Order: sequence, then structure tokens, then C-alpha cells
Amino acid sequence: MRMPKHIGVIPDGNRRWAVAQGMTKDRGYDGGIDPGLELFKLCEKEGIEEITYYGFTTDNTKRPKEQRLAFTKACIDAVEILSKENASLLVVGNTESPMFPKELLKYTKRTEFGEGKIKVNFLVNYGWKWDLNSLKEATGNNKNIINYIKSNDISRVDLIIRWGGRRRLSGFLPVQSIYADFYVIDNFWPEFKDQQFYDALKWYDEQDITLGG
Amino acid sequence: MRMPKHIGVIPDGNRRWAVAQGMTKDRGYDGGIDPGLELFKLCEKEGIEEITYYGFTTDNTKRPKEQRLAFTKACIDAVEILSKENASLLVVGNTESPMFPKELLKYTKRTEFGEGKIKVNFLVNYGWKWDLNSLKEATGNNKNIINYIKSNDISRVDLIIRWGGRRRLSGFLPVQSIYADFYVIDNFWPEFKDQQFYDALKWYDEQDITLGG
Repeated sequence: MRMPKHIGVIPDGNRRWAVAQGMTKDRGYDGGIDPGLELFKLCEKEGIEEITYYGFTTDNTKRPKEQRLAFTKACIDAVEILSKENASLLVVGNTESPMFPKELLKYTKRTEFGEGKIKVNFLVNYGWKWDLNSLKEATGNNKNIINYIKSNDISRVDLIIRWGGRRRLSGFLPVQSIYADFYVIDNFWPEFKDQQFYDALKWYDEQDITLGG
Repeated sequence: MRMPKHIGVIPDGNRRWAVAQGMTKDRGYDGGIDPGLELFKLCEKEGIEEITYYGFTTDNTKRPKEQRLAFTKACIDAVEILSKENASLLVVGNTESPMFPKELLKYTKRTEFGEGKIKVNFLVNYGWKWDLNSLKEATGNNKNIINYIKSNDISRVDLIIRWGGRRRLSGFLPVQSIYADFYVIDNFWPEFKDQQFYDALKWYDEQDITLGG
């Protein structure tokens, strides 16, 4: 079976899930923490080399304050939990804004935890404009502009899995996602099940890979 | 009904269609010309403001020569046909490479034909790296980097329709596609039918629009 080296995860639908449960929207993010760890363990088991979680974006921070505080806390908790695993962990996002949680500053340099086998990237207060803006610092001679984006320590993504039914990237790593295959799961992220992950892998195995050729 | 202002078209599957018809792969591109005009006319009828066709990319030019010549000719023909319509036409791509057909140089400045109502963009010898590379020319003070990409006369895409079943962007306008909803049709592009277009519009109408918020 042909496996993706790098999986991008868009864990969408927390708020819709909360509303469907009769809770307020801000209560939905707590339900997204366990799935994050469960998915990590499945990736570890299947030998995936790299995972990138879409935590929250600079766009997201314009939401009502109680939601913003809730998803920020959920991201802090999720990163702390992943730091207990065998992960080479990196948090990527705009640390110069007050929306970046100071608790996660220490993870903005890649650090190996445990056996540190899987590269785990976690986007926190990430913005695609912020990411691309540093291309201005490349000079005319630099052919490989990819080295100049802010997220340059994150590799090309092979497979993006999005929960919650939306068929769009919503700003997720535009450069690394250029050739990625995009798999959408209608269930909300808090409804994560192992089988969804395996369905995505099976689907990915059926795709051809051309890298635009 | 909520309509997309700008539709991106990825007309994939010409070669697979040709093979399924018992033809050689290079013969598939001819079958893609009529659908391009048909789709334009539907957009005109439904009041779509802008269309971008994914002609061919710098990646594509690495294919066997007979295929390259065939898709280049198909793009020349398609642009010439669109120039007979009411379109504000612009060809966008790397004109500095020998792969760019000289017949299309005259379309690389936006020109109004007929009543010139719909903006029609046609990507020819387009490359996402080429597009983003000019960001190097933005200076530190320029917040809106979008103005500096080579394709800056192409607006944000609302709906991308891809024929041929692949669920990926393959380098299509990474900046303008950030928030685009992505609709995939399993049929090959030469099998275009009006109903596919209307199915895509209906699906788009059912999506929410958040622009990442």
C-alpha cells in the first residue's frame, strides 16, 4: 500500500458538533482534543513520517471572545498532550501578535520529545498571508522561494484530511498543499473514528501521483 | 440562489478520455475545446463575472513532445475562439520561456472583445512558483502582498470545478484559491455536460461562506 509521508489535518466542525449536542459553540473545542491524540497514535502505528494539525488561524481570532479563548485553550492542551508522545514537535504561527498563547512559545523551535520519531507540526495563530509575506526577504537570485516562507520547516503535504464536510483549504499551508490530495469526511472532528483515517489512507492509495507532471 | 462571482475551471482527463476512446493520449485535447466554449456560454447566461481556465502549466511541458504540442495547440484554439465572444480576455503565464506560444502573446494584456462583459482568464505556461516568485519584489512596507503576484489581475476564486475525478489543486492559483470551494466531477473534461455545471452551482449554493472567519 502506498502511504502518504505527510498528512495535513483540518479538524473542522467543533462548533457545529457542539450546537448539535445542545451546547454553546465554544464548548465544541474540548471534544477535539482526544481525537488529536488518537489520530497521532494511528499515524505512529502506520509509520506516517509527518503530521500537521490546523490549530487556529489569524482569521479565526476575529470570532467572539469566548470561542477564541476556548479554541486557544484547546490548542494549548493538545500541544501539551503531544509533547508527552514520541514526537519532533513544532508550533508554527505568528508569535508577534497578542493572540499567540505565551504557553506555546517554547514549542516554536522544533524539539524532540521521547523518541521524537514523527514530525508533528501544529499551526497556532497561523495566517497564510503571514506565511507568504516573508517571501519579500528572498532576493532575486533565489530560485527556490519555498525556503523563504515562514513555515519552511514544514514539508510538502501528500494528503489533507478535512473533517466537517467543507471542501476548501481555508488558508491551510498554500505552498505545501499545491499537489496534495484532498479527502473530506462529512462527520465533525469530535466524531473522529479510526475507520475514517483508514478510509482516507485507502482512498489515497488509489490516487495517482503526478506532482503536476 | 447565491452565485459564485468567479469560477476556476480545471479541465482534467483529456488523456484518459482519449485512451478510453482507443486514441493516443495527444488526441484527447481536441475534445476539450468545445466544452470550453460551452461552459463560457453557460457562465454568460447565468451572469458569472469571471472565469479562469487552467490551460497548461510549466509542469505539464515536461510531458512527451506530441502531447505538449497538442495541448499547446488546443489552448491557442480555445483562446482564439473565446476572443470571438463578449469577453474581457487575459492570458497569464510565463512568456519568457520558449514553451509559451507566440500566437498568444497579444492576449497577455487584458483586452475587451465584443461587449467584454465577463472577465476570462486563461492560464498558459503558468507555474505557481513563477506566480509567487515576484513576491520578492514587494518591499517590507507592503502589507497586501497579493498585489505583487504575477497573476494579480485575477481575482479571488469562489468556486473551483475540476473534471476528471482528481481531488487536488495541482498548482492552480494558490493565492486566489485560498478560500475557494472545490467541486470535483468524475467525468472527463471532454465529457462535459451542462448539467455538471448546474450541479456545481447548486452545490455551491448550499455551502456557507466564511472566508476563514
